[in-house]
Amino acid sequence: MSEIDLKSYIRDIPDYPKKGILFHDITPLIKNPRAFKYTIDKIGDQISDVDLDYIVGIDARGFIFASALSYKLDKGVILVRKPGKLPFDTLEASYELEYGTDKLEMHKDEVSPGDKVLIADDLLATGGTAKAAGELIEKSGGEIAGYYFLIELTELKGSDKLNPHNIWSTIKFPF
Amino acid sequence: MSEIDLKSYIRDIPDYPKKGILFHDITPLIKNPRAFKYTIDKIGDQISDVDLDYIVGIDARGFIFASALSYKLDKGVILVRKPGKLPFDTLEASYELEYGTDKLEMHKDEVSPGDKVLIADDLLATGGTAKAAGELIEKSGGEIAGYYFLIELTELKGSDKLNPHNIWSTIKFPF
Repeated sequence: MSEIDLKSYIRDIPDYPKKGILFHDITPLIKNPRAFKYTIDKIGDQISDVDLDYIVGIDARGFIFASALSYKLDKGVILVRKPGKLPFDTLEASYELEYGTDKLEMHKDEVSPGDKVLIADDLLATGGTAKAAGELIEKSGGEIAGYYFLIELTELKGSDKLNPHNIWSTIKFPF
Repeated sequence: MSEIDLKSYIRDIPDYPKKGILFHDITPLIKNPRAFKYTIDKIGDQISDVDLDYIVGIDARGFIFASALSYKLDKGVILVRKPGKLPFDTLEASYELEYGTDKLEMHKDEVSPGDKVLIADDLLATGGTAKAAGELIEKSGGEIAGYYFLIELTELKGSDKLNPHNIWSTIKFPF
């Protein structure tokens, strides 16, 4: 597997979703068959020895990585969603926004005590949503096997918030 | 690959999202590693000879199937999303709801003339969202290679709305 410069497939969009934010658009990466395959194979190989039952995808871009990685590693996919999107009884966890709070939900019967769960999303920024997803796993008695992010914004130190769990990320900005 | 009764992994939830609707919850199926793998392998084998460049996932459960299937078949993933979710310039297409209309968006540079695109979602009901996704492909000059749905509600005749394109579905309700 020859190296691919995955950063070249990320499109930076200034002032999205609001002024002063530089948004890292992953759509060129997942559209390119070689870059997408390379991304999934790379993280799949990195975690192939991790003791793992399920992979959580965080609504909605996290679904992309949880799904392909679950398929590659023969795991099951669990959805953690924005409020009101799941049809069965749910658990919820809150996280802070710049102003106010928001919630994530997971079906209450998804994770059983002792289940080992990896949590996947496209981006680690401040880590608030990832931490809330982890709380849903732990509320259910499951164990967090680690976190996977396609992109990690290292200067925001989101990884501090996810201590002491393992974090894997494929692309680091600024480096 | 021995047969798996995939219907047994679909949880029926009455009166969701509103009274009188029977919701088919796919979360038990995707959580089961064998059922999920079987589902993706089955459709992957069915369409392995289809001339295809990209697989569209319709926001948000469609991402799950577009992603794993793209990984299996070495294709690229394209996102068709609810309004306001995509950061770059978009095309849009409308579809009818029971009362009023809603829209789907796709980045305007995702599909180029001649690209062959499969559209994936979890459920075919009346076919409105799938047809709108198809319009986005055709507005871009792309060709619809077909549609894939995990579940098809045959009595709603959504397939009529998607003529003359190929439709593959794994689970049919009521039969």
